[in-house]
Amino acid sequence: MAEQRLPVPRHRFVSREQFMEHLYPQRKPLVLEGLDLGPCTSKWTVDYLSQVGGTKEVKIHVAAVAQMDFIKLYLLTSWSREQPKKCIRNSSSQRMRNTTYGHLEKTRGSSYSFTGKDVADIRQQFPSLGEDIKFPIFFKEEQFFSSVFRISSPGLQLWTHYDVMDNFLLQVTGKKRVTLFNPQDAHYLYLSGSKSEVLNIDSPDLDKYPLFPKARRYECSLEAGDVLFIPALWFHNVISEEFGVGVNIFWKHLPSEYYDKTDTYGNKDPVAASRAMQILDRALKTLAELPDEYKDFYARQMVLRIQDKAYSKNSE
Amino acid sequence: MAEQRLPVPRHRFVSREQFMEHLYPQRKPLVLEGLDLGPCTSKWTVDYLSQVGGTKEVKIHVAAVAQMDFIKLYLLTSWSREQPKKCIRNSSSQRMRNTTYGHLEKTRGSSYSFTGKDVADIRQQFPSLGEDIKFPIFFKEEQFFSSVFRISSPGLQLWTHYDVMDNFLLQVTGKKRVTLFNPQDAHYLYLSGSKSEVLNIDSPDLDKYPLFPKARRYECSLEAGDVLFIPALWFHNVISEEFGVGVNIFWKHLPSEYYDKTDTYGNKDPVAASRAMQILDRALKTLAELPDEYKDFYARQMVLRIQDKAYSKNSE
Repeated sequence: MAEQRLPVPRHRFVSREQFMEHLYPQRKPLVLEGLDLGPCTSKWTVDYLSQVGGTKEVKIHVAAVAQMDFIKLYLLTSWSREQPKKCIRNSSSQRMRNTTYGHLEKTRGSSYSFTGKDVADIRQQFPSLGEDIKFPIFFKEEQFFSSVFRISSPGLQLWTHYDVMDNFLLQVTGKKRVTLFNPQDAHYLYLSGSKSEVLNIDSPDLDKYPLFPKARRYECSLEAGDVLFIPALWFHNVISEEFGVGVNIFWKHLPSEYYDKTDTYGNKDPVAASRAMQILDRALKTLAELPDEYKDFYARQMVLRIQDKAYSKNSE
Repeated sequence: MAEQRLPVPRHRFVSREQFMEHLYPQRKPLVLEGLDLGPCTSKWTVDYLSQVGGTKEVKIHVAAVAQMDFIKLYLLTSWSREQPKKCIRNSSSQRMRNTTYGHLEKTRGSSYSFTGKDVADIRQQFPSLGEDIKFPIFFKEEQFFSSVFRISSPGLQLWTHYDVMDNFLLQVTGKKRVTLFNPQDAHYLYLSGSKSEVLNIDSPDLDKYPLFPKARRYECSLEAGDVLFIPALWFHNVISEEFGVGVNIFWKHLPSEYYDKTDTYGNKDPVAASRAMQILDRALKTLAELPDEYKDFYARQMVLRIQDKAYSKNSE
């Protein structure tokens, strides 16, 4: 199983009915080809985007290295072919402030259309761009959560993470390679919150991450016009092989009340899950009163109880 | 590691000081030889016991099969060379009521000196027997929990289980083989409460219990005069190779307030452990609101959190 790369199945000209009845219930990633995404696939050149969207304030993740990590991350405002205006947040140090940035295509980073605390919707934030794109109507409008406009520089790699919403990644222009991992393999991914600590997935540090190769690895290449369905909880790592533009559409798989109402990115765990985790922390605090050997013993009993009561009987 | 049988270390003529300073802190089972247990080792013949203790009401576990399980278990009153007086509790069926029992040595069972809801103490319940035996003074009197007088018929096997108290098993007459398992291997033992479901440990049903051979297995043979130290939480399985008499002395390893005050057998989990488990059940109830795939995913996150926060860093 180690190092095996499983292909993500590809389906061409899938109707809403086919998707909803046969594909969606399987909760597996798949690439949809040949969907009509509207004129964006030909219209969205760098020149056009600079002209149409360039005055809008956006956030840009600028990475110091090709493999973005969540330590060295810089948020900037506005995109253009010129230098970004200012650094609005710098999560680790001031080091980047004095760096001269290249223009849009050459800045090593990923800009996306979240602004402030609002949920992103390309149709609201960039109405003229919104007119260029057709969303696959594979879910009900009330399930819609957000649409995120993304510009990625070549070579940029987004860390492995999961989202809590179902997700269509529309590859409008450019190429991406997406690597996916089954949620049931989370324990091989060295998680920190919703993110994997293993940044270099192609040549992982096996001394530090010895279990990583055990994670079943699915891969696909996305070309302009492809749509990748990423079910909620599936881990994904995205590398841009060319400068490109994409749109993520997130929608709710579960009834609305299951989700955290303060979630803007679609990556806060469902309410019941967060609460369960908080309650677990109380249990662990209680257990911490005991000496090490007892704590270890009863912690193992707790694990057995969880495996017995909450693990799926349909593990693969 | 599978099927390997590790010897339990044996130590001869150990002083209190040697035990407390060097052996006890290791929290590993060991056999103490050559301790002075008093005149019981020569005095406690079947004739003598029938005469001295035979009128006292006791509980007798009578097993229908050599390998006792916790389904087919019968509790009787009084021991003698005659048929036991009556069945006071029959945990599964009435089937044994009409069986004719043999006398003390031949009844397939294990009698022990718990009476009603009191904590057993041979010195209180059988004062004349209590005078015959010297307890190893390896712990403080206030740590004493109970002493249990046991008569076991040949071939009888007590299921694998753990106790929450530290335990000296004094083999007064007869022979036993004791098999022990490290508490850290609990997940290979198919537990139901404090007991393993694997009754036939020498020829386990591997279809049903495939992980059982992974449990590290320690073994020792106890002869008359031997004392086995079984640290709290260590699993033990006891088979009587001959008719024999023994005494278990249980004492508190932790401060008194850690233990459940309603515990008479020394096998109720420490208060903090039971509370942690109850809190965990609330967490699992909360998680159960989610569909299967989410429940599975977050259950796995819970397991990772427990392993990270509560597992011993000194796992062997």
